[in-house]
Amino acid sequence: MRGFVSFVSSGPGDPELLTLKAVSRLGKADVVLYDDLASGAILDHARKGATLVSVGKRAGRPSAKQEHVNRLLVDYALTGASVVRLKSGDAGVFGRLEEELEALRAAGIGYEIVPGVTSACAAAATSLIPLTRRHTARRVQFITGADVKGELPTDLNFAALADPLAVTAVYMGKRTFPELAARLMVEGLSPETPALLAESVGHADQRLVRTTIAKLAGQLAQESVTATAVILYGALADEAP
Amino acid sequence: MRGFVSFVSSGPGDPELLTLKAVSRLGKADVVLYDDLASGAILDHARKGATLVSVGKRAGRPSAKQEHVNRLLVDYALTGASVVRLKSGDAGVFGRLEEELEALRAAGIGYEIVPGVTSACAAAATSLIPLTRRHTARRVQFITGADVKGELPTDLNFAALADPLAVTAVYMGKRTFPELAARLMVEGLSPETPALLAESVGHADQRLVRTTIAKLAGQLAQESVTATAVILYGALADEAP
Repeated sequence: MRGFVSFVSSGPGDPELLTLKAVSRLGKADVVLYDDLASGAILDHARKGATLVSVGKRAGRPSAKQEHVNRLLVDYALTGASVVRLKSGDAGVFGRLEEELEALRAAGIGYEIVPGVTSACAAAATSLIPLTRRHTARRVQFITGADVKGELPTDLNFAALADPLAVTAVYMGKRTFPELAARLMVEGLSPETPALLAESVGHADQRLVRTTIAKLAGQLAQESVTATAVILYGALADEAP
Repeated sequence: MRGFVSFVSSGPGDPELLTLKAVSRLGKADVVLYDDLASGAILDHARKGATLVSVGKRAGRPSAKQEHVNRLLVDYALTGASVVRLKSGDAGVFGRLEEELEALRAAGIGYEIVPGVTSACAAAATSLIPLTRRHTARRVQFITGADVKGELPTDLNFAALADPLAVTAVYMGKRTFPELAARLMVEGLSPETPALLAESVGHADQRLVRTTIAKLAGQLAQESVTATAVILYGALADEAP
């Protein structure tokens, strides 16, 4: 008898931004494998007696090897368990799903994906700005600022990212933003382009900084990266607080 | 005494994809202004006795004038009411928020934005594919296929949209997709580029069609548009069902 794995998106961190479906899956799970970013009060929704396993991905800290996570997922499912794999934000957006899906397919284990609130949407909402606006912000794009080694990916489409009429959200991009901003300015994006740093959205230590890409690059070059953040830049609405 | 307006994202349609915060806001509202797309079982969460007002946006049907919606929002809030403005998907993504926010600011009325599950995330999850993948799909972008008049916007960044290494989600784009696909192919995107039509995601009549951009363009050129849909194309994972 084979179990089943639900990849459950836990949203940006605010436990109120869990979906009803996420709550329902957590309440029925035998086993919950979670990243530290997707934990805290969210785990209170897990069924009493469920096995909770941290697989420890956390900004700036070493994480369990991906192969180890794959193995745990498969092994728990093969006991017939109902497994929840909790992922922060929306699991399909920079959630590194593909290797875990592949491991399950190889083992013949069924799965579903429960979507959630992705961090860019939460950051914009908290800042009281729409991500898109008619005429002025027709395109929104998400990238990650960190490749597997934590470096700025070298194969980004910098021309697409330097479009002043788009809104861009950079996930996991605090450390590499000075380098990204420099590349964008080389591509012709104005240093005065609005930028918004949204740190620890929905947590007690939430921080929102409204600035420009050049100033944010200067600021982040001097900061050590601890809290997770989303950076928005481009055709941002004026009305942020 | 002034009321307060909560812009509440209702997600892609599946009532289980409401967030706990959305349910909480609906349960406390005096007035709920809703688009038809954000209605159905979702309105069951509204407080008994709340005033429910349809402002009627619906794919392919005439909708209440934006000015009329703005006026209703302000007038209800000025009675001191707690108002929920329900928007489908994530309110900040092609939700036409900006005019409603501006009307509230002009009237000195406070508001918040409750983010939600945007349709592209739901479509990908339902299709069992991640929107992003390391190395192969580093950038995801969302556009709308319909301007105010329902036409393909003329000022889109077609070069950015023709990037085969990105995943693009087109909202409200069924009717104009043949034209968009033609433009993308002129920009050099292969006719064989994978495409996925996700129609009525999370509803009983959900339809998922896995194809290519050229074939989808041909198919949609012959169909009348009724159900809402998201179209994904680009560096899509192979593993859709």
